[in-house]
Amino acid sequence: MRGVTALLSWDQETEMPENAINERASQSALMEKLLHQRSTNKSFVKLVNDLYEKKDDLNDIDRRSVEVSKRDLDKNIKLPDKFVEESAELRSKAQNAWVHAKKNEDFSAFAPFVDAMFENKRKYAEFIDSSKPIYDVLLDDFDEGMKTETVAKEFKDLRGELVRILPKVKKTEPTKVFSAINFDKNITKELLKELTSKIGFDFGSGMIGEVHHPFETKISSHDVRINVKYPKDDLSFSITSAIHELGHGLYEQNVGPEYSKTSYDEGQSLPIHESQSRTLENMIGRSKAFWKYAMPVVQKYYPELKKFSYEDAYHDLNIVAPSFIRTEADEVTYNLHIILRFEIEQLILKKEISTSEIPEVWNSKMKDLLGIVPDKLSLGCLQDVHWSIGAIGYFPTYALGNLIAGQFWKEFVKKNPDYETDIENGDFSKYFDWCKENIWKFGSYYTSGEFLQNITGSGLSYKYFINYLENKYL
Amino acid sequence: MRGVTALLSWDQETEMPENAINERASQSALMEKLLHQRSTNKSFVKLVNDLYEKKDDLNDIDRRSVEVSKRDLDKNIKLPDKFVEESAELRSKAQNAWVHAKKNEDFSAFAPFVDAMFENKRKYAEFIDSSKPIYDVLLDDFDEGMKTETVAKEFKDLRGELVRILPKVKKTEPTKVFSAINFDKNITKELLKELTSKIGFDFGSGMIGEVHHPFETKISSHDVRINVKYPKDDLSFSITSAIHELGHGLYEQNVGPEYSKTSYDEGQSLPIHESQSRTLENMIGRSKAFWKYAMPVVQKYYPELKKFSYEDAYHDLNIVAPSFIRTEADEVTYNLHIILRFEIEQLILKKEISTSEIPEVWNSKMKDLLGIVPDKLSLGCLQDVHWSIGAIGYFPTYALGNLIAGQFWKEFVKKNPDYETDIENGDFSKYFDWCKENIWKFGSYYTSGEFLQNITGSGLSYKYFINYLENKYL
Repeated sequence: MRGVTALLSWDQETEMPENAINERASQSALMEKLLHQRSTNKSFVKLVNDLYEKKDDLNDIDRRSVEVSKRDLDKNIKLPDKFVEESAELRSKAQNAWVHAKKNEDFSAFAPFVDAMFENKRKYAEFIDSSKPIYDVLLDDFDEGMKTETVAKEFKDLRGELVRILPKVKKTEPTKVFSAINFDKNITKELLKELTSKIGFDFGSGMIGEVHHPFETKISSHDVRINVKYPKDDLSFSITSAIHELGHGLYEQNVGPEYSKTSYDEGQSLPIHESQSRTLENMIGRSKAFWKYAMPVVQKYYPELKKFSYEDAYHDLNIVAPSFIRTEADEVTYNLHIILRFEIEQLILKKEISTSEIPEVWNSKMKDLLGIVPDKLSLGCLQDVHWSIGAIGYFPTYALGNLIAGQFWKEFVKKNPDYETDIENGDFSKYFDWCKENIWKFGSYYTSGEFLQNITGSGLSYKYFINYLENKYL
Repeated sequence: MRGVTALLSWDQETEMPENAINERASQSALMEKLLHQRSTNKSFVKLVNDLYEKKDDLNDIDRRSVEVSKRDLDKNIKLPDKFVEESAELRSKAQNAWVHAKKNEDFSAFAPFVDAMFENKRKYAEFIDSSKPIYDVLLDDFDEGMKTETVAKEFKDLRGELVRILPKVKKTEPTKVFSAINFDKNITKELLKELTSKIGFDFGSGMIGEVHHPFETKISSHDVRINVKYPKDDLSFSITSAIHELGHGLYEQNVGPEYSKTSYDEGQSLPIHESQSRTLENMIGRSKAFWKYAMPVVQKYYPELKKFSYEDAYHDLNIVAPSFIRTEADEVTYNLHIILRFEIEQLILKKEISTSEIPEVWNSKMKDLLGIVPDKLSLGCLQDVHWSIGAIGYFPTYALGNLIAGQFWKEFVKKNPDYETDIENGDFSKYFDWCKENIWKFGSYYTSGEFLQNITGSGLSYKYFINYLENKYL
């Protein structure tokens, strides 16, 4: 049923005609309602509780499956039906308000909804576990067991290091490889098919769709969809976002069959999921070795680009410079955008600022962290959809994904010191196999903490990511 | 919920990766089950029965809505859950068997499933209404109130006329306009967008998808999808099938709001629906007037075709010649393919032949009706999916659609004697408005018999269609 809901959303972003939006909203709401009914109905509740009592008699995989079901069930039954309905309605209205506020550069029209959404999340946390800090409850939905304290500590140190590194990175101008000509959607599609299948995407169990905002979605374990955009004047966006979403997609496609029939086959730790997309996008997709292989492929589809070298492509994809939009930020500045959002979420939840102060606080933090101030709200505090859809506590998972990517990457390189030669020759098997064996096949059998412990022998640390940045950029 | 089911099917034919087929089958089955549960649950049954008792107090539209709901409910509750499940399973297995039998040219592997399917339909008719002839019960699902006797009588006369006309039609060779070059999918898509929007398709509430077998589907009243195929070597197939499916799509898009919120907004009389697709495909899409307008449009997208005239296009689209495949048959021979299938369905239901005799009877009837005999079963009795999915009693609706198209067309021309000049100039508003006012806006408020009575003042008759053929071809 989750797959049906995922298809309704995917289709809405890709194929659905625009006037169908209200009917689609009803269709999605009906599915959500049926899903909630099924996951809280008496016989299901009894089944989960019975199995949970006997969980010590089960094998490891079944036990984890039962524990996750019990965890989700316990959350679901704590939420009154009325609250679930109200929340869905609020999300729908707030998202609509955000779209208009962003278009009109008018934060005041959106502020009441931000207020309501934070209030909604306070209530939510109260229902789920009133003994815990609110933000811990929110984080737990995206990364089981993650604590606000841990995030705050890592982000504090990370912030210090990034602010130290940023001014030291050499400033350069682009050679404009990726905007040299007008790019044709249909040619780029073929190019992306070649690159992504070479890296390991299985088109028998997946496809590439076209959307305005790139994302990856799983309709079923044999139906994984990478969705990208094809701007005429920017080939780099199509390529880097396809490789980013491919990282998510490979994870979904390669969950081992023994782990895929359980309720936790969706890679529920968002930081682990994001570590897979960021490693592929950055550590590989923005590396010299990759572009030594990829540039001739790009030139096969776009012979007009033959006047550029692979070093030009590498250079253009790795320019570091403070900018306003999170999703377009380079590797060095990206996490500062996240830290800003995390700090603002803390201030609001602690009621140290009111939502009407967000634009002012946002701009002042941009100044502190990146040295620039946006002159439009759409380039500032109105740029992201997250708060409008209730995704509070979600932003940190992006940065945590980067940190984990740094930690996993160090392990991968240690085990495969000669990986670059392979990639230069278009052979991604070492990376593919390492990820499959250590991460993908387990799905979400492990929490992010367990994955880190198993693979690196230690817990979360920003140091490896900083180390990676220093090696690459300084 | 029907929209969700429709989307699952649409996506399966268009976007879904091939390995996802089993999971999609489970997703569709789950939706079917939930739909059946919802449409037979106690409170819904009570609601319908209560309303039905008070139906004389309702306005016309609401009364018809209640009557249709009651009609469908009465059918649904007569079917035991076990029979519904068995039927779904049989359909799934039989369709699979048909795919393989067709591929292997082996009817004997399919015959047991045809047997089982006809047996299943006998049982079905027994559950629904054992006092009626079986075939009447089956017809009623596709065309409320239609009788086998009526079909048999019309088909007998139609058969005689067609066999009389066919040898008189002049034999000609194609100029090969539509296979002159290699056609590019993306260019053809743009061409189809221009033609279909000119005729009246609303792309704000619809889209054109790509499939192997063309069809039209409604996901919601603002989400109508025309799905076509783009063979490189045959532009005529893309154009004629797009215009055929457009006929269905315009009907769906133009149901009046006062009729669309009821349970009968899907144009449930298949012959009426088919009359709309066939009129647009044939009476308009294969006319000289249309090609006077359309040829320059085609040539705008494919300048290589400038050496051909609109008369060449008209000529190539109207070649009459007996052929094996129903879906590729011309206007004159098409109904003979249907009559053949109707006659075989009768023979099997009356147990006058066994299913193992189908290939022999098929070929002998082909000889009688069209003077040709296929040398492969895939060109003969294994060509259609219908029997494998339980669509017995469905074939007649195609021919009835043609007959009704002939009857409606005569009325339209009588009211709009100068319609050709408009169409030559790319103005389809007279046709669009006439259909909307007389047919589309009512959705399925009327049965096909009522529509015929309202529009033509008489009942079903093959004569107008024959008249149309004689005028055009003799």
